Amino acid sequence: MASFNLLLLPGDGIGPEVNVEVEKLVRWLDQAGVAKFEIEKDLVGGSAYDAHGVSISEEAMARAQAADAVLFGAVGGPKWDSVPYEVRPEAGLLRLRKDLGLFANLRPAICYPALAEASSLKRELVEGLDIMIVRELTGGVYFGEPKEIVTLENGEKRAVDTQLYATHEIERIARVAFDLAAKRNNRVASAEKRNVMRTGVLWHEVVSRVHREEFAGAALEHVLADNCAMQLVRNPKQYDVIVTDNLFGDILSDVAAMLTGSLGMLPSASLGAEDPATGKRKALYEPVHGSAPDIAGKGMANPIAMIGSLGMALRYSFGLGEAADKLDLAIANVLGAGLRTRDIASAGANAVSTSEMGDAIIAEM
Amino acid sequence: MASFNLLLLPGDGIGPEVNVEVEKLVRWLDQAGVAKFEIEKDLVGGSAYDAHGVSISEEAMARAQAADAVLFGAVGGPKWDSVPYEVRPEAGLLRLRKDLGLFANLRPAICYPALAEASSLKRELVEGLDIMIVRELTGGVYFGEPKEIVTLENGEKRAVDTQLYATHEIERIARVAFDLAAKRNNRVASAEKRNVMRTGVLWHEVVSRVHREEFAGAALEHVLADNCAMQLVRNPKQYDVIVTDNLFGDILSDVAAMLTGSLGMLPSASLGAEDPATGKRKALYEPVHGSAPDIAGKGMANPIAMIGSLGMALRYSFGLGEAADKLDLAIANVLGAGLRTRDIASAGANAVSTSEMGDAIIAEM
Ligand SMILES: CC(C)[C@H](C(=O)O)[C@@H](O)C(=O)O
Ligand SMILES: CC(C)[C@H](C(=O)O)[C@@H](O)C(=O)O
Repeated sequence: MASFNLLLLPGDGIGPEVNVEVEKLVRWLDQAGVAKFEIEKDLVGGSAYDAHGVSISEEAMARAQAADAVLFGAVGGPKWDSVPYEVRPEAGLLRLRKDLGLFANLRPAICYPALAEASSLKRELVEGLDIMIVRELTGGVYFGEPKEIVTLENGEKRAVDTQLYATHEIERIARVAFDLAAKRNNRVASAEKRNVMRTGVLWHEVVSRVHREEFAGAALEHVLADNCAMQLVRNPKQYDVIVTDNLFGDILSDVAAMLTGSLGMLPSASLGAEDPATGKRKALYEPVHGSAPDIAGKGMANPIAMIGSLGMALRYSFGLGEAADKLDLAIANVLGAGLRTRDIASAGANAVSTSEMGDAIIAEM
Repeated sequence: MASFNLLLLPGDGIGPEVNVEVEKLVRWLDQAGVAKFEIEKDLVGGSAYDAHGVSISEEAMARAQAADAVLFGAVGGPKWDSVPYEVRPEAGLLRLRKDLGLFANLRPAICYPALAEASSLKRELVEGLDIMIVRELTGGVYFGEPKEIVTLENGEKRAVDTQLYATHEIERIARVAFDLAAKRNNRVASAEKRNVMRTGVLWHEVVSRVHREEFAGAALEHVLADNCAMQLVRNPKQYDVIVTDNLFGDILSDVAAMLTGSLGMLPSASLGAEDPATGKRKALYEPVHGSAPDIAGKGMANPIAMIGSLGMALRYSFGLGEAADKLDLAIANVLGAGLRTRDIASAGANAVSTSEMGDAIIAEM
């Protein structure tokens, strides 16, 4: 039987409690004979800072490098609002992305039929929504240098961030987007600000060339990032796959997630390049939602985004597409049966806690 | 009687036809004795490129510098998609903003009661919405250097844009936001990405200090830009004034505008610093919507955003607040009477053309 090495990094806030549910599910999959899983666990974010004074330890980084997949919870919270910039909770996540080379961030925005009413948009605009946002994750303004604050002679400060993109970085993310689109409706929208940014000009040029030379069968549309944000609000179903840079992807994927009314339900995958020797790629899976410190520790969090992230791991890292399908179905059934955590509560539904939701999904499996 | 010098820059697409309506209104105000207006007109964007090979001529720039206010239509369209970067239509607008020092962009997002149904959001979430987005307009990634594409030895290209902010740039836009908030509900949300960007760290620091030292009576909230985009979709009425940088402001103001269902109705003002000697400030007023080349020349465009931009000019540049109030009322009445251009059409309403809408507003005055 195939055997996989899984690193759990629960993090802060509701991260640990939703991670517990995924751990239960992994053990169940192991016992059910779906595959063998070795589980390791470590700290990241504020909890790593509290323990080690850094947002991720070298040991945890080494474990992440060795793992077949990382399951990441969430990081951050007001408790760490004034820790030094270099060791703020988010730095742990950014280092994982960068050092593992996780350049492709896949963020599905799906509207679960049972939850269409929870969207702030009119039902007909979001019912059946199924967008895949492909966000570049190791480049752009997140990592470009110089990135610093300097104090000038007159006492003023001057802060700089640098948005950098090279041809190969755009090529490889474009390929990921077109490959995914081919398994969907084969339509890609590429979002940038080429009317203002030089990186947008290069982005537009490279995506166009990759399309022409390698994926001419796909439909490609270029859209300005500000207009894309508008169009997502106006009529999100016009999109199939959206490919965009790190910063625009951060915002557009959050908008898309919020539209669905299913924020607590949305998983994401961050993937590295395939190793030509082993065919393996580094991977980290995490919910789209954040650490929600206000409800942490109360058993109110929705574990579905975290559990769905395991689903993505089954599919993209472990070649267990069938188990992933089964898990998706289990989630849909549990929702269909009316089970609801507080974030997706509705009149007449069955209110459950984080662990009751996790248990129900396992029972469905 | 006070006398003002107005420069009309209609631009491209629907720009000219909505500008005609504002020109009619200015002539009416002049004849009605509200004030004396000198009108000049010039080219900008693609139409300037077609005539002069640049997106704004030196002569037009000189006129803009001399004017009491500029009324700008819209620029751009597929016709100029492949003109050189330096002379693309948008460059004319960006040069106006930069050379006139228009650092403060005020973008109200108001939901007209008569149009609440046109929003993609549920009516109760947008009815009565009234947000003011204050966007920094002459700094950030729009203008920072280096901003270039270089070709490396291996044939790869590398593009760079630079996001720069200095203390005084953040201070002055923060003051504009707090000043405006004081005339509203005195609540300011400041949006940045301090968890990833050094400019966000400085932004957070300076806005906090300006608040503490000069506007302690206002309520200040800091919000990450990605979360702000989400919150706008989830529950926009939680905001009063939002202050943010040039790039985030571009996106967040478009999202806010789209939420209202009134995109064709929203004006904006771009203001410079007050000249201590004359008490005057340079100013440009423009609709939030773009050049909409698909409907240009068909008499279908909604002139209300352009006319409302004149309303902002009356208020912020000419000290004619009473006339501005009257104009706002005239717009509300015309809508209340059921007049609708195509973009805001609804069953049972009275469909009118661009010029019919303009005429109706003048008749109401
Ligand atoms: C936590 C933060 C650094 C992160 C980002 O900005 O990428 C988050 O917003 C996300 O989208 O994963
Ligand atoms: C036309 C373009 C340069 C401009 C911008 O990006 O600022 C527009 O989107 C706007 O918001 O005014």
